[in-house]
Amino acid sequence: MNDAGPFRLEGEGLFTTDTYVVDPPFFPGGDIGRLAIFGTCNDLAVCGGTPVALSLGLVLEEGFPLEDLRRVLASVRAAADEAGVRVITGDTKVVPAGKGGGIYINTAGVGRATPGLRLSPARMQPGDRVLVSAPVGAHGLAVLAARESLSVGAGSASDCANLHPLCAGLADLGPALRCMRDATRGGVAAILNELAAAGRRGMALVEQHIPVDGTVAAAAGLLGLNPLEIANEGVLVAVVEDGSAERALEILRARPLGARACEVGAVTAANPGRVLLETSIGGRRYLDMPRGLLLPRIC
Amino acid sequence: MNDAGPFRLEGEGLFTTDTYVVDPPFFPGGDIGRLAIFGTCNDLAVCGGTPVALSLGLVLEEGFPLEDLRRVLASVRAAADEAGVRVITGDTKVVPAGKGGGIYINTAGVGRATPGLRLSPARMQPGDRVLVSAPVGAHGLAVLAARESLSVGAGSASDCANLHPLCAGLADLGPALRCMRDATRGGVAAILNELAAAGRRGMALVEQHIPVDGTVAAAAGLLGLNPLEIANEGVLVAVVEDGSAERALEILRARPLGARACEVGAVTAANPGRVLLETSIGGRRYLDMPRGLLLPRIC
Repeated sequence: MNDAGPFRLEGEGLFTTDTYVVDPPFFPGGDIGRLAIFGTCNDLAVCGGTPVALSLGLVLEEGFPLEDLRRVLASVRAAADEAGVRVITGDTKVVPAGKGGGIYINTAGVGRATPGLRLSPARMQPGDRVLVSAPVGAHGLAVLAARESLSVGAGSASDCANLHPLCAGLADLGPALRCMRDATRGGVAAILNELAAAGRRGMALVEQHIPVDGTVAAAAGLLGLNPLEIANEGVLVAVVEDGSAERALEILRARPLGARACEVGAVTAANPGRVLLETSIGGRRYLDMPRGLLLPRIC
Repeated sequence: MNDAGPFRLEGEGLFTTDTYVVDPPFFPGGDIGRLAIFGTCNDLAVCGGTPVALSLGLVLEEGFPLEDLRRVLASVRAAADEAGVRVITGDTKVVPAGKGGGIYINTAGVGRATPGLRLSPARMQPGDRVLVSAPVGAHGLAVLAARESLSVGAGSASDCANLHPLCAGLADLGPALRCMRDATRGGVAAILNELAAAGRRGMALVEQHIPVDGTVAAAAGLLGLNPLEIANEGVLVAVVEDGSAERALEILRARPLGARACEVGAVTAANPGRVLLETSIGGRRYLDMPRGLLLPRIC
């Protein structure tokens, strides 16, 4: 009945927000409710945070089926339970037909920072290793296939997942863990370019080390999409000190979500702000920041 | 550059969220940016909280003028400065034309709870006094007039304001302050009915004690609207112990925003869950919870 919900937090807090406008709201491997919970928990987790409380703001378009709303809310609850976090405050607005997209969800999240853990791309050093926790491109392709009723890519399911267990595992590395990101909009290409730019370091990647599922690779090829630029919702990118890379991979691979984790490249002093890709045919090219919004309403 | 912003908080925290879908985004007395900041700060303030950090989630419809976006963001900044709070995390989504309403804004807020202050309608006692901080109905009428280009009501401006100074002032009353609400959607009618229902007490109001500006009363009359059911964005409803009512009014009236604060009625043992109105012509009727959504997209 109150306008605000109470929570307790010791030490430094973290705060994040994300609005989810994915179209369609239900897709293989997930739905907008699951996405909204895990996506915001992941934003906290990659900053070294443990989710403490979430908010849920719904914008419903008149005519959005109540049955679908119930499904979304059940999914919100299940995902929050899975992530061990509670939704303690909420709001619902209804907008006229033609003024919305069925359902939009904003989730903001409060988290507890891990004491002493300093994560920043500015801490990256030449020689550091770049790790990717799972095959890339599945989420974006699954949503696109569902939206456009494509048979191509129809076999793939979103990777939508709670990354906190992986992030918390890597936090045990202490200062050897430089920074983490979940590779959402713009895929690993965007996230690696952001890290390189923010840390003023270069990155050298080996294309064939970046895990891509066969279904995703084939469908992306047919559609003219680069899997490295497709959004993920359960793929972690982590940069760790050279000497801790093996330990980091063990930590990731010990969990089902990170079973296929790979080292994909290294941080370089050369080419600050750029990501250099050694292609599978032995060439070299820059992996640029994806231009424009490749796929709208993907998350 | 990080996915989450840091904040510090001692003791108990409060968390709230609200999405703003007001149409039009600019109206006399305010705009969606100012509304989004003050509205969420107010939700914290009426729970006895002091805003610590805000999040800002934008949903922009393709074609929303960049110039308007700049105006909204400037207004967000000005309102946050006025409220003494910082926006520490944000997100922007763009949806296709026809899938949005120009601009929608979600703001979630983290606040610091006032130690020892317990606010709840369950604490209301028969004889407690019901106070209203300012004339009612101005916000809803101003938005409606702007949306429909009505000449009627065109003279009124939204009451959109930061209620924290009033709430913090009343918090000095300690246990004599029972509960507070900002009278947004459904106006004072909805808020008083909610308090009566939640506290399982009745309320007896004197209609002519409820402050309504002449312009608002006249326009509402012409439009067939009840000012008590019209949304406000800067009107505080507070319930205080009988013996502290005078002091509470002094506190409110000492600030420009509360200069016209009034005592409008009392909590009763009779009629639990209902709000009885002594009308200006001497009759008595129940002031019911407004049915349906009187005015869509008013906040």
